[in-house]
Amino acid sequence: MTDHAPTQAPTLHVERWFNTETLLTLEALRGRVIVLEAFQMLCPGCVSHALPQAQRVAALFPPGQVAVIGLHSVFEHHAAMNPDALAAFLHEYRIAFPVAVDAATPGDRIPQTMRAYALRGTPSTVLIDRAGRIRLSHFGRLDDLRLGAEIMALVCEAAAPVSEPAAEVPRVGGCDHDGCTVPTAD
Amino acid sequence: MTDHAPTQAPTLHVERWFNTETLLTLEALRGRVIVLEAFQMLCPGCVSHALPQAQRVAALFPPGQVAVIGLHSVFEHHAAMNPDALAAFLHEYRIAFPVAVDAATPGDRIPQTMRAYALRGTPSTVLIDRAGRIRLSHFGRLDDLRLGAEIMALVCEAAAPVSEPAAEVPRVGGCDHDGCTVPTAD
Amino acid sequence: MTDHAPTQAPTLHVERWFNTETLLTLEALRGRVIVLEAFQMLCPGCVSHALPQAQRVAALFPPGQVAVIGLHSVFEHHAAMNPDALAAFLHEYRIAFPVAVDAATPGDRIPQTMRAYALRGTPSTVLIDRAGRIRLSHFGRLDDLRLGAEIMALVCEAAAPVSEPAAEVPRVGGCDHDGCTVPTAD
Amino acid sequence: MTDHAPTQAPTLHVERWFNTETLLTLEALRGRVIVLEAFQMLCPGCVSHALPQAQRVAALFPPGQVAVIGLHSVFEHHAAMNPDALAAFLHEYRIAFPVAVDAATPGDRIPQTMRAYALRGTPSTVLIDRAGRIRLSHFGRLDDLRLGAEIMALVCEAAAPVSEPAAEVPRVGGCDHDGCTVPTAD
Repeated sequence: MTDHAPTQAPTLHVERWFNTETLLTLEALRGRVIVLEAFQMLCPGCVSHALPQAQRVAALFPPGQVAVIGLHSVFEHHAAMNPDALAAFLHEYRIAFPVAVDAATPGDRIPQTMRAYALRGTPSTVLIDRAGRIRLSHFGRLDDLRLGAEIMALVCEAAAPVSEPAAEVPRVGGCDHDGCTVPTAD
Repeated sequence: MTDHAPTQAPTLHVERWFNTETLLTLEALRGRVIVLEAFQMLCPGCVSHALPQAQRVAALFPPGQVAVIGLHSVFEHHAAMNPDALAAFLHEYRIAFPVAVDAATPGDRIPQTMRAYALRGTPSTVLIDRAGRIRLSHFGRLDDLRLGAEIMALVCEAAAPVSEPAAEVPRVGGCDHDGCTVPTAD
Repeated sequence: MTDHAPTQAPTLHVERWFNTETLLTLEALRGRVIVLEAFQMLCPGCVSHALPQAQRVAALFPPGQVAVIGLHSVFEHHAAMNPDALAAFLHEYRIAFPVAVDAATPGDRIPQTMRAYALRGTPSTVLIDRAGRIRLSHFGRLDDLRLGAEIMALVCEAAAPVSEPAAEVPRVGGCDHDGCTVPTAD
Repeated sequence: MTDHAPTQAPTLHVERWFNTETLLTLEALRGRVIVLEAFQMLCPGCVSHALPQAQRVAALFPPGQVAVIGLHSVFEHHAAMNPDALAAFLHEYRIAFPVAVDAATPGDRIPQTMRAYALRGTPSTVLIDRAGRIRLSHFGRLDDLRLGAEIMALVCEAAAPVSEPAAEVPRVGGCDHDGCTVPTAD
């Protein structure tokens, strides 16, 4: 059901993190499905649909299987959408999942992670599989039914072969006729 | 994610079918995930949420993987919700998936399939896996995100062991690190 | 704000009433604003929008000022939408305002009141002012903000001159700088 | 239908205006019904319901009869909701009606107009009649049907007696049995 020839997900270029004690990296999250939600706090579609959807995903899937990460990719109204404003926004909208501030490049309107992922704008939803590959990159509105199915399809996949570089021991899981086994080493 | 100790799904007791040339049976559908949507045409929650949701499921999942079946389980206002009225309702609401009229038992307010499945009322959503076992039976509103995930989890499962009786050659599928393979013999 | 050159509202041709002890007539309701909601129980837009809207109108405006009347104008699937089916529908959807079954003419698909009012279909919302004149006849969806304003504009109007035939003493009301006076003889 | 013993609406204390060439005052708007929508750009209920509702009001009622005025009354996260951020917000949300930035008092968390009107928070909807009196002050969500009716009730009222101070010639209107006359001097 995915629409992307699998390529390894680029590193996140993060200026600052919210809602997490540790600096997260894709390598640290290897083995989990990652739902990366790129947004701008003043983007109406992000506020009305994509961010509430990301909150529903975070509430539904066990964190050991699925990591929801917000990415504040500001490409317009930079002064208004500074990190302090973002902090107020995250507080008022009760957004609890980790949120990365996409790092800016001086002189470039588009932030670094947005460029690295070739995102078309906000909201963009990127699904990264348990082997760290991009399996979906969608600009605009995704309906819940499809998103739930796409995420579960990635949860159900076995981990990548050992040849893939990983920062930690690969998590083994897989599906058989009794169901999909959650990796034990969470 | 399922909430039901797997038991074999009981036979459907059908008085009449709509939207299908052939008389469907669970055995004939073995190998597909079945989404059985029990409803009454005058049940507000069925009309406003469950049936449109079933239409979304039918539109999203390939029919070779997931079969959506409506079950008109009338347990009140029997005269009003007769099969001719149902035909008009299915036409006006553009419901195209197969719909079974749950067979009545003289003197019993509750129709036969509703009793066999111990349904609490309408709407009820029953998910039957590719081995023909009930994996979810939910009364009331199910949100799209969860339903998409639950259905996909069952799609991703391998077929049952050959010991399970089946009306046709078991469909083989399964998940590996490249994804979930759609059964080829559709 | 109205869109209809005022003509006297035609008599309602009613085969049967629900939710009222007395047989209602427009003359008996003279002095009140009448919100006539023409619907079919199997018309999706009626069920999803127009009837809930009519319930909101009935809940908001004092019954002594505004009378909400449903009109079941069946022009298709006549067998399915018979009065017994309508009774079940009104019960399940908790519709409490009076509902008239539009009288059929043998050999004519279109019922009599629908013809008399030249309604284009269902749902249709007809606003009749306190003098018994049609001030709005709208086919399809009306948004709440506009409907609330249109009804209040008619509530705020003074009663018709005494020359208008009325079944009861004309109700006197009117607006001045302190507000709109509710007719005292309710 | 109003819930406020009529008192004269206090002056607006405005630090800055958006979307208007002229500095607006209640006196300059005398004769029109004023819909004052107090909001904060990071207040979820304001963004999801109250501001879109104010836009619907502005689109429905003729500007010569009803003036919609936004009031940005920031009482929390002051740094984040500065006027430049507000400018970006108004642009992204396509808010075109005039918006006043409620003037702050040094050392006071609550801005001046919010205090003068004793507003409980945001969103708050204040209806001011054609004589400049507060007729409704509602904190939280107002449904469209009621708001449309309340605004029209005020539109239908005659102008205040000449003794009321006004910056311009009082607009005369009123309701009779033919309807509510729109003031001619727009």
